[in-house]
Amino acid sequence: MLTVNAYGATSATEPLVPMTIERREVGPHDVLIEIKYTGICHSDIHHAHSDWKQETYPLVPGHEIAGIVAQVGSKVTRHAVGDRVGVGCMVDSCRECANCRKGKEQYCLRGNTLTYADVDSGGTPTQGGYATHIVVNEDFVLSIPDGISLDAAAPLLCAGITTYAPLRRWGAGPGKKVAVVGLGGLGHVAVKLAHAMGAEVTVLSQSLRKKDDGLRLGADHYHATSDPATFEQLADSFDIIVNTVSARIDLDAYLSLLATGGVLANVGAPSEPVSLNVFSLLGGERTLAGSLIGGIRETQEMLDFCAEHRIGSEIEVIPAEKINEAYERVLASAVRYRFVIDIATLR
Amino acid sequence: MLTVNAYGATSATEPLVPMTIERREVGPHDVLIEIKYTGICHSDIHHAHSDWKQETYPLVPGHEIAGIVAQVGSKVTRHAVGDRVGVGCMVDSCRECANCRKGKEQYCLRGNTLTYADVDSGGTPTQGGYATHIVVNEDFVLSIPDGISLDAAAPLLCAGITTYAPLRRWGAGPGKKVAVVGLGGLGHVAVKLAHAMGAEVTVLSQSLRKKDDGLRLGADHYHATSDPATFEQLADSFDIIVNTVSARIDLDAYLSLLATGGVLANVGAPSEPVSLNVFSLLGGERTLAGSLIGGIRETQEMLDFCAEHRIGSEIEVIPAEKINEAYERVLASAVRYRFVIDIATLR
Repeated sequence: MLTVNAYGATSATEPLVPMTIERREVGPHDVLIEIKYTGICHSDIHHAHSDWKQETYPLVPGHEIAGIVAQVGSKVTRHAVGDRVGVGCMVDSCRECANCRKGKEQYCLRGNTLTYADVDSGGTPTQGGYATHIVVNEDFVLSIPDGISLDAAAPLLCAGITTYAPLRRWGAGPGKKVAVVGLGGLGHVAVKLAHAMGAEVTVLSQSLRKKDDGLRLGADHYHATSDPATFEQLADSFDIIVNTVSARIDLDAYLSLLATGGVLANVGAPSEPVSLNVFSLLGGERTLAGSLIGGIRETQEMLDFCAEHRIGSEIEVIPAEKINEAYERVLASAVRYRFVIDIATLR
Repeated sequence: MLTVNAYGATSATEPLVPMTIERREVGPHDVLIEIKYTGICHSDIHHAHSDWKQETYPLVPGHEIAGIVAQVGSKVTRHAVGDRVGVGCMVDSCRECANCRKGKEQYCLRGNTLTYADVDSGGTPTQGGYATHIVVNEDFVLSIPDGISLDAAAPLLCAGITTYAPLRRWGAGPGKKVAVVGLGGLGHVAVKLAHAMGAEVTVLSQSLRKKDDGLRLGADHYHATSDPATFEQLADSFDIIVNTVSARIDLDAYLSLLATGGVLANVGAPSEPVSLNVFSLLGGERTLAGSLIGGIRETQEMLDFCAEHRIGSEIEVIPAEKINEAYERVLASAVRYRFVIDIATLR
């Protein structure tokens, strides 16, 4: 066992604090990663606060992990000491079910193992990337190409793949009009990705407050959804809308912005049921879709794409002692656009 | 003007009665059709009763029309006197918008002209196929191949294309599992089509009352949705579910029956909004889609497919004077599976 420094929650209601946690010994197929940077995802906060289910504490969040390989098991072939690597939302899956065989480990039919707030196949609770080291099976370790710095790469492991997968699935590219709802941690990466794929990109944000940013990041157009004229002006416009907002939105209004055959792809979800009129789908052969991160193969494809197009997350690097403050700012949407913890401050 | 015998509604509340209506003179691009059979679609009843909007009366329903060409205009090239032809839900569109150019006239951006309960480009109310003759622009007249009898072909013009289009769009074929929700006018055709496409077909019906029929029509499996065990047993099963039921269903329950990446395609719609949990889409990359009839080119493709596979609607042929009684039986779901009016009884 390795005892490592970490930063985690001791209950759903207390601030996160420094702590030590145990990592398993490096097995034959394992990689020990010296973590350099870990992004703060909104879902880290939900887990820390037991918003979705009662969690087990202590709980160390973090599934946007970038670092350097420090040690490899005897049978590891995919990675070598010194490699730049990343870990996302999953650290294991059954490898055998129909979905795993298709490279869709995020939908593993026997249930994959999440990077934290889960239990691994040995029955040990998993702990995430707010820590100096992590031990992960080599198959769930991604290679981070040289074209991206580790700090800007970290958020790609969740925010990047979450938006890349639906853009690819629904055919974002030249001649396609893509709208991104919400310019936050997910949305700002979606804008960069869709632009790099060659699509014409529109940001739909509550206000025009971040318009300059949006255009700088690659958007061609920027509209405020608080202005009812937006919905008239943009009716029947988009081939793909990626909705990164977890709050409830007026689905019928957003569906009306889709061109014939268009798709509204949700990558977040409100906890309450949503309502829509099925006629919003019938009229215009429209589609409402959901997408959950992406498989390991596609995550690597996304990282390679980002390196080729020089895409990283827009980040604000913070020391570990600022994590609680960062959580408050995430909840207040006061970050442009992702906090990344400098893990050197945990050593 | 041609005065022809018809059967129609004089108000939203009175039974349909025999009447005469006027058809326009046959223009250079028009086809005069001697109607032989017209199917009774559930939406005929909604229109006759002004369920969806206040209609103009008299109103002659009918958009599942099969007949013989009696006369053609001077510039008609697609059809000749004596041809077996059909007319579906549309009789005109702009031909110029992006959707018309793609052969998706049902989504004409300037608004197409419906076969009845609409107004044509000349400002005249359109009247449907419960009549001895109809005059239609040749581009909206379909060819009915010899392989299908005219009476069994009539319902294909609406029920056939409505279910064919989503099955094709979402890839029904060998190796795919298709479920059809509801074994009625639409559902029974969907079963035949999906079976002919090579898919493994399951009927999901409220009860097992029509099980023998379903299996005879081509279903491989038949389950009662009133039995909660159905939803456990069939979880994560289907690639495509075609929902032909217009009543509200528990969307989350049906979405849970989809395999990863599966689609629930709605071809009907309840008038009230529906509710769903977006997590039902996220978990399993599932899709909720809508589909509205089909374009003219695809309707012809469907008719050709049906002729090749010897597919027609299961019908009960009635004389015109039984239309009101048939309406009552449609509302009571007491028809297997489509009423078709023998238009000879109107002459």
